[in-house]
Amino acid sequence: MVTRRTDLALEAGELWREGGGDGPPGVAEREWEEAGFRLRELRILDAQGEKALGKPAGTYLSMDLDPLTHREEGAFPRAAALLAGLLRRLLSIGGDETVLVCGLGNAAITPDRIGPEALRSTLATRHLLHSLPETFAGLRPVCALECGVMGATGLESAELIRAVTEAVRPAAVVAVDALAARRMRRICRTVQLSDTGIVPGSGVGNARAELSRATLGVPVIAVGVPTVVDAGTLAADLLTEAGLREPPEELLSRTGAGLFVTPRSIDSLVRDAGKLIGYGLDLALHEGLTVEDVQMLL
Amino acid sequence: MVTRRTDLALEAGELWREGGGDGPPGVAEREWEEAGFRLRELRILDAQGEKALGKPAGTYLSMDLDPLTHREEGAFPRAAALLAGLLRRLLSIGGDETVLVCGLGNAAITPDRIGPEALRSTLATRHLLHSLPETFAGLRPVCALECGVMGATGLESAELIRAVTEAVRPAAVVAVDALAARRMRRICRTVQLSDTGIVPGSGVGNARAELSRATLGVPVIAVGVPTVVDAGTLAADLLTEAGLREPPEELLSRTGAGLFVTPRSIDSLVRDAGKLIGYGLDLALHEGLTVEDVQMLL
Amino acid sequence: MVTRRTDLALEAGELWREGGGDGPPGVAEREWEEAGFRLRELRILDAQGEKALGKPAGTYLSMDLDPLTHREEGAFPRAAALLAGLLRRLLSIGGDETVLVCGLGNAAITPDRIGPEALRSTLATRHLLHSLPETFAGLRPVCALECGVMGATGLESAELIRAVTEAVRPAAVVAVDALAARRMRRICRTVQLSDTGIVPGSGVGNARAELSRATLGVPVIAVGVPTVVDAGTLAADLLTEAGLREPPEELLSRTGAGLFVTPRSIDSLVRDAGKLIGYGLDLALHEGLTVEDVQMLL
Amino acid sequence: MVTRRTDLALEAGELWREGGGDGPPGVAEREWEEAGFRLRELRILDAQGEKALGKPAGTYLSMDLDPLTHREEGAFPRAAALLAGLLRRLLSIGGDETVLVCGLGNAAITPDRIGPEALRSTLATRHLLHSLPETFAGLRPVCALECGVMGATGLESAELIRAVTEAVRPAAVVAVDALAARRMRRICRTVQLSDTGIVPGSGVGNARAELSRATLGVPVIAVGVPTVVDAGTLAADLLTEAGLREPPEELLSRTGAGLFVTPRSIDSLVRDAGKLIGYGLDLALHEGLTVEDVQMLL
Repeated sequence: MVTRRTDLALEAGELWREGGGDGPPGVAEREWEEAGFRLRELRILDAQGEKALGKPAGTYLSMDLDPLTHREEGAFPRAAALLAGLLRRLLSIGGDETVLVCGLGNAAITPDRIGPEALRSTLATRHLLHSLPETFAGLRPVCALECGVMGATGLESAELIRAVTEAVRPAAVVAVDALAARRMRRICRTVQLSDTGIVPGSGVGNARAELSRATLGVPVIAVGVPTVVDAGTLAADLLTEAGLREPPEELLSRTGAGLFVTPRSIDSLVRDAGKLIGYGLDLALHEGLTVEDVQMLL
Repeated sequence: MVTRRTDLALEAGELWREGGGDGPPGVAEREWEEAGFRLRELRILDAQGEKALGKPAGTYLSMDLDPLTHREEGAFPRAAALLAGLLRRLLSIGGDETVLVCGLGNAAITPDRIGPEALRSTLATRHLLHSLPETFAGLRPVCALECGVMGATGLESAELIRAVTEAVRPAAVVAVDALAARRMRRICRTVQLSDTGIVPGSGVGNARAELSRATLGVPVIAVGVPTVVDAGTLAADLLTEAGLREPPEELLSRTGAGLFVTPRSIDSLVRDAGKLIGYGLDLALHEGLTVEDVQMLL
Repeated sequence: MVTRRTDLALEAGELWREGGGDGPPGVAEREWEEAGFRLRELRILDAQGEKALGKPAGTYLSMDLDPLTHREEGAFPRAAALLAGLLRRLLSIGGDETVLVCGLGNAAITPDRIGPEALRSTLATRHLLHSLPETFAGLRPVCALECGVMGATGLESAELIRAVTEAVRPAAVVAVDALAARRMRRICRTVQLSDTGIVPGSGVGNARAELSRATLGVPVIAVGVPTVVDAGTLAADLLTEAGLREPPEELLSRTGAGLFVTPRSIDSLVRDAGKLIGYGLDLALHEGLTVEDVQMLL
Repeated sequence: MVTRRTDLALEAGELWREGGGDGPPGVAEREWEEAGFRLRELRILDAQGEKALGKPAGTYLSMDLDPLTHREEGAFPRAAALLAGLLRRLLSIGGDETVLVCGLGNAAITPDRIGPEALRSTLATRHLLHSLPETFAGLRPVCALECGVMGATGLESAELIRAVTEAVRPAAVVAVDALAARRMRRICRTVQLSDTGIVPGSGVGNARAELSRATLGVPVIAVGVPTVVDAGTLAADLLTEAGLREPPEELLSRTGAGLFVTPRSIDSLVRDAGKLIGYGLDLALHEGLTVEDVQMLL
């Protein structure tokens, strides 16, 4: 069978259902609406669920961005507040414990720039709390790390994050990254959060090393937005839709190798999605901040 | 019939031949090798040729970059010198006449950044010749204009170029832009030069306005490198190769609309191609400069 | 007598008074407070005033930024609204006439980056009104031009602005630039607006060409923030304060030539001042916009 | 007595001599010329020398850049090779041991950007040797770390460097930084190298934390270029030259606090000096590379 690549748990669930029959075993799903946004929770409960969806056990939350995409009045502050609420559900730590936010991805490749863009709107506060503890008393210590590109540093992102985690000893790490979706209609239209960290094979780039409680020793929350579709996945779906029951493997691998598909407007889509994640993080991490406060502090 | 989009004249020729029969009418082609690089000349001679290839009459030169891609010893200076030679063939102007080099494309979108990258290696000399005419006596006056993004300026690139052309009154304009290829294997593997300027519908972005002798009043040399394949073109070729004689139009337009396909390593590919074009321009425009001279002057 | 350089009309007035006696002839001054900010108006009425202050006849408005510097609650929106009011006083044009905003200065030199920073918060709207006239009906057509650096383009800023002015035919040009103050305490603490345009010798860089109604054919409003003190001016004041009646010219010119003095925190000062100017321009140019609207549109 | 601030050991020696009498005790100096460049070695031998010059014991090498400043033919490759030779004298490690190069300083402040500029020309090779050990067999593993700005990350540079040093375990650290000179004529005209690391109070920014064998556990080579003169130092020298025997402390501290003096052309000066350091490092760290090799690899 031809594999479709997706980093979205909800699409992995859809793929399972396309095989026919019921929902995947070992998986609990629910869906609801809040403030005009559609939210979903998918929990992979056990080894059966892991096998069915090809993802590690844990909680996957996602939020559709339609009201934002349609530029509804007041959609941005509502979206940021909802995202902050979802993040807080996954981050169960005290209000003054340090958090390390890592922006993964190569800023020189537009659809891989979700992490760096999110950092542009993320408040780094740890040094302020060291130097002016009274002025900034209400804030949580946050470090923000842009991981850069291996070609520029000679260091893998995972090495750098591990080194800084050991030095800073945060209570949790949040890793922001670009994802691959199966369907073009999901590009920059959904945000996924999970408490499983980041596992090899995710992301727009070819190889991400694992970032998880197992490798870092602290909880790792992954926040991602799909920005590309793998060209091989697009091709396989296209041939299936055109009626070919068995798309030729050779043709697919020749078409898809090392290629991705992305929309022409990817620059503004990535900028908007990164801004939302940054604001969502700020509201989640610092008790009592508003969108206006963040705008003034940035 | 399903259309394949390509900005490369040589691919337009291939498409014609796929229709069966001889080479396109009203078109003269030749191919040769120099210093290890394969070069091609395609001339569209008349209205028949224009119709067959869907491009305006004129000369299209192209150069394959294989020796550079394989990182052969000394390939870069040889490639830059060859490119300079091709440019000089199209630019028939005196050695001290002003040239305006325009870098088209949105620098925030990786595959659209060929123009801005080329400008990073293009020597702007006009102000030096004004202020220190004796020191820089051997150089030609060159202006280098990054056209930026309409969203940031409120101005179309073509408006800006026309305004500067009227002010500077160059003997020729060189417009550097990213192109769409039909075949992935051509991405960043070929450079195309033509004396026809740039016509609507070219480029990675959705719409380029015409830049030509008709609109600017001076000869316009276009220099381009393919950096994307249109997703609809990829899909149509894929379905044909898989044996479907009539790929369903609806499926194709749904798949391809506003999407492009590009390789994961597009950032370094674009950087390398832009550098080559910049050096090629410098060697073509200034008599007697070497690659080492350019490196020191940049 | 040793010259002190200043681009601020109010400091030119102070310098005159240091010479002893009354206020400068041919000059009308007044000062008031609004919303916690100190505002000043200085009008140079005639040739006597021009000679006394060494600046062309016209209206110079300035606004002290103290409440912003002290990070008073709500200071930013108040400052932006006040600045917008001052701009509207100088810009007497209809609500749908085009305005060209030019950001002068070299973005690679921190204190010269006021213009480029202001453009980051300036809404360019002209292309939107062309493509979607109904959606953006309330907005004024605005073009935003970053003039770049002669070394990168071979074009002088003034040439580029003149070319675009001829092409776009705006009803007015607004030129944003960094200024030199006489006193360090004014660095990034005041904004100056004038209806005289920009005259040679202003700015952080060595040479600005004249941008005025005389050279562009339309009214030119200059908006500036002092970001440096000329080293020779600092030296002359220092020697005078230390009690030397006649600071030796040779020593001064040796100390000051081509040097400027600026604070270590100039990067964040310039960022903040540029943002204020951008927002002030947006509120002045588009009827009915609020700071929140601008934040969402940027 | 009024203090003059300088990060250059050779200027500290000059200051001592201005006090009258012989050269400083506990200090050995020599000076010579090579390939047209003037080189100096100053060794602080003991506690007496440390006290006299206010710097830790160790070797300080410096190289004047005059032939480069005057754009002599072939000056750049000669300067890079000489700098590489000086670096190798201080770095006594095996050819395949890992080196960590750190670029200190805030890239948003032009004269503080020496470190980030040097990194743009420094080859990061460690990841290449991991992934393609045979292709890159001749190179040394090098990591290149841009330390960024505390305000953007919440991390001090020294914390980040210590964390990466512990993770990567290099045989030596090279720290590139901007320096303060006493004399304007030394701005970007000299490079200083030392085996003492970086000590608090150096640099253009207000506070650098110590980076030395004591804090990092491995040898730390500091490479620096003076890019500013402290305004208080300039003022004190100016008043002394004007004949004031006792410049008033209050006036000086009021003039100088938090200010620096720098030339108007600082952007191109810093770019050129950073490039030289990057190339010098590449030639020093990788046996057998030439300037042309580096140009192709970057």
